[in-house]
Amino acid sequence: MRVPYNEMSDLFKSILEKNGFVEDKAKKAALMFTDNSCDGVYSHGLNRFPRFVSYVSNGHVDPDVEPCLEDSFGAVERWNGNLGVGCTNAATGMDRAMMIASQFGIGCVAMRNTNHWMRGGSYGLQAARAGFMGICWTNTTLNVPSWGAKTCNVGNNPLVMAFPWKDSHLLIDGALAQYSYGALEGYRMAGKQLPFPGGYDKFGNLTCDPGAVLETWRVLPIGFWKGSGYSLLLDVIGAALSKGNTVPDIGRIGKEIGLTQVFIAFDINKISGREYIDIMAEKLLADFKSAEPAEPGVPFFYPGEKEALTRKENLELGIPVNEEIWKALLDERK
Amino acid sequence: MRVPYNEMSDLFKSILEKNGFVEDKAKKAALMFTDNSCDGVYSHGLNRFPRFVSYVSNGHVDPDVEPCLEDSFGAVERWNGNLGVGCTNAATGMDRAMMIASQFGIGCVAMRNTNHWMRGGSYGLQAARAGFMGICWTNTTLNVPSWGAKTCNVGNNPLVMAFPWKDSHLLIDGALAQYSYGALEGYRMAGKQLPFPGGYDKFGNLTCDPGAVLETWRVLPIGFWKGSGYSLLLDVIGAALSKGNTVPDIGRIGKEIGLTQVFIAFDINKISGREYIDIMAEKLLADFKSAEPAEPGVPFFYPGEKEALTRKENLELGIPVNEEIWKALLDERK
Repeated sequence: MRVPYNEMSDLFKSILEKNGFVEDKAKKAALMFTDNSCDGVYSHGLNRFPRFVSYVSNGHVDPDVEPCLEDSFGAVERWNGNLGVGCTNAATGMDRAMMIASQFGIGCVAMRNTNHWMRGGSYGLQAARAGFMGICWTNTTLNVPSWGAKTCNVGNNPLVMAFPWKDSHLLIDGALAQYSYGALEGYRMAGKQLPFPGGYDKFGNLTCDPGAVLETWRVLPIGFWKGSGYSLLLDVIGAALSKGNTVPDIGRIGKEIGLTQVFIAFDINKISGREYIDIMAEKLLADFKSAEPAEPGVPFFYPGEKEALTRKENLELGIPVNEEIWKALLDERK
Repeated sequence: MRVPYNEMSDLFKSILEKNGFVEDKAKKAALMFTDNSCDGVYSHGLNRFPRFVSYVSNGHVDPDVEPCLEDSFGAVERWNGNLGVGCTNAATGMDRAMMIASQFGIGCVAMRNTNHWMRGGSYGLQAARAGFMGICWTNTTLNVPSWGAKTCNVGNNPLVMAFPWKDSHLLIDGALAQYSYGALEGYRMAGKQLPFPGGYDKFGNLTCDPGAVLETWRVLPIGFWKGSGYSLLLDVIGAALSKGNTVPDIGRIGKEIGLTQVFIAFDINKISGREYIDIMAEKLLADFKSAEPAEPGVPFFYPGEKEALTRKENLELGIPVNEEIWKALLDERK
C-alpha cells in the first residue's frame, strides 16, 4: 500500500496538533517524518512516528519549548534543547551552524539536553540543500558493547556527512553499530534476515537474526574495534563541547532523552566558490562511477543517490506504508 | 630484538640528514617515526621508514620545502603542502588549526598537495598533548572498491579523533578499510592470518589471508557500505575545502603523493573549561570500564589506552624491531 506525500504529512500534522503542537511546529515536524519515509528511511518515518507521539504524550518530549543559546566562543555555540522536540531542535542546530559558517567559514553548534533527532540524514540534507557541507552526530542511550565488552557501554551514535550536489546530494548517515535499532526493527518487521551478522544472540554467537540481536542488545560496531572507538570519541567530544549528557548518563535516565548533538557546517561557496566545487564533484563522481561493478550489470550507487531515486519514485507513486501502522494512525486521528 | 628510543631516533635522524634534510627537520621527522614505533604502531614507524626514504631519494617528497598559506576565510585556512614531507607538513597543519581555534573556538586547516602523513594518530595526539580536541583525515590513493564495485574507486582515507586525557589520551585512528595496507603488511610479515575477513581473494571470495588481499587490492570497507560512504564523503569534503586532489586524481598520478588533508581543532579549555572536562571524562571512562568483559577476566581498553601502555613499556624496555629492516638501516648509515 502506498499513500501520497501530502496525505501522510497531513495525517502526521493533525495527530501532532492533537498532541499539543502549535500549527507551525506540527507542520515542520510532520514534513520531516514524511520526508524520511519518502526517502525510503521508513524506520525513521512512519514506522517511528507512533513511538515519537508516545514520548510526547507521556511528557518525555515537550512540544512547547524551543532550544536556546547558552554560551558561545567564536565559531562555537552551546545550546540547550530544553528537552523539546528532537527533530525541530536539530534543524535549529544545523540552521544556526550554517549562520555561523556564513561568518567564519565553519560553524559549530553543540546542543545538550535535546531529544532523538529521528533521521540524522535530515540535517545533512538540510545543510546540502542550502549549499553547505554538513557534519553532525548525536549520542544515544547505552546500546552497544564496546569491543571486548559484553554489556553496553557506548552508544551507536550516528555520524552524518553531507555534500551539496544538484538534486541528489551526497549523504552518509550511519549508526556506528552495523545496524541501527531502527534497521534491526525494519528487518524483523519484514521477516528478513540481516545480510551480514549484526550482533550476538543469547548464546554469545554472531547471528544474522535481527530478533535475536534485539533480544541481547549485543550489536556489532562497524569495523569491530574501530566503530567502537569512534563511538566513544564522538560521545566525549560532544559532551565536552555541549556540557551535556554522555551515553552512560543517558543510560542512567532509562529513557532515550536528554541527548547531546553536534552540528558542524562549512560555507563552501564562500570558502572555495560554487563553480570550482561543481567541476570537482562532477569529475569525482564520474571517476567513482567508472569502477567495474562487483556483479556484472548490477549498478552501484554513491551514498545518497538511492535515497534521491527512492524519493522521486515515492513522490510519483506514493510512499509505501506498513498498513497496520498506517491504519492505527488513521484511527487515532478520528 | 628491542632498541632504545634514542638509538632509533638518532639513526632515523642521521639517515634523513644523509638524504638532504636540514638538522631541525630531520630531528622532527625522526622523532615522529620513532614515536609511531614506540606507541606500537610499527607499520608506520620503523617498518615504513625505508619506503619513506625511498620517496625522498627518488624526488616524490621534497625535504627542502615548507607548506604555505594560500587562502583563508574566517576560521578556515587553505594551505599548500608543496609536495614536502608529509609528517612535518601535517604537524604544521594541526598546529595552525590549534592557533585558529584559540581565536575562534574551532579551527580548520585544509591542506592540498601534501604527502603521506604516516600515522594519522600523531596529529590527534599532537592536539591532545596541547589540551585540544582534534579531528583530522587524509585521503589516499585509489585503494578500496566502494560497496558494490570490484575495482578501486575510493580511498581508505583514515579518520582520526582525539581527546586530551591525562597521560593516555583518547585516540581513534582508523583507515576506513577494515585493515590498512600497513596493517595487512604487518600481518603478512608476521606470518599471521587476519582475525576477520579483510577483503577478497582473486577468486572473489572473502578471505582472512593478508597476502591474498594485498594481491587483489579488494579490501573491505569498515561496516561494508557504511565505510565506503564515509570514505567518499571525507574525500569530497577535503577536496572542496582544500582545492586539492581527490582520490581518483591521486590514482592517476600513480604514486601516493599530492594528498589532501583536513585538520580540525577545538580549544576545549576555552570553550568549556578544563575542570568541567576532566570531571566529565573521568566519569565517562569509569562508566565505560564498568561494563562486563566479553570474556571473563580479559580486560578491554578505551581507544588510545593500549598505545599509551605500549609506549610506557617500550620506553622502559626498548622498542621491538624487525631485525632485518633495522640492520639494513644500520648499514645504510655507514
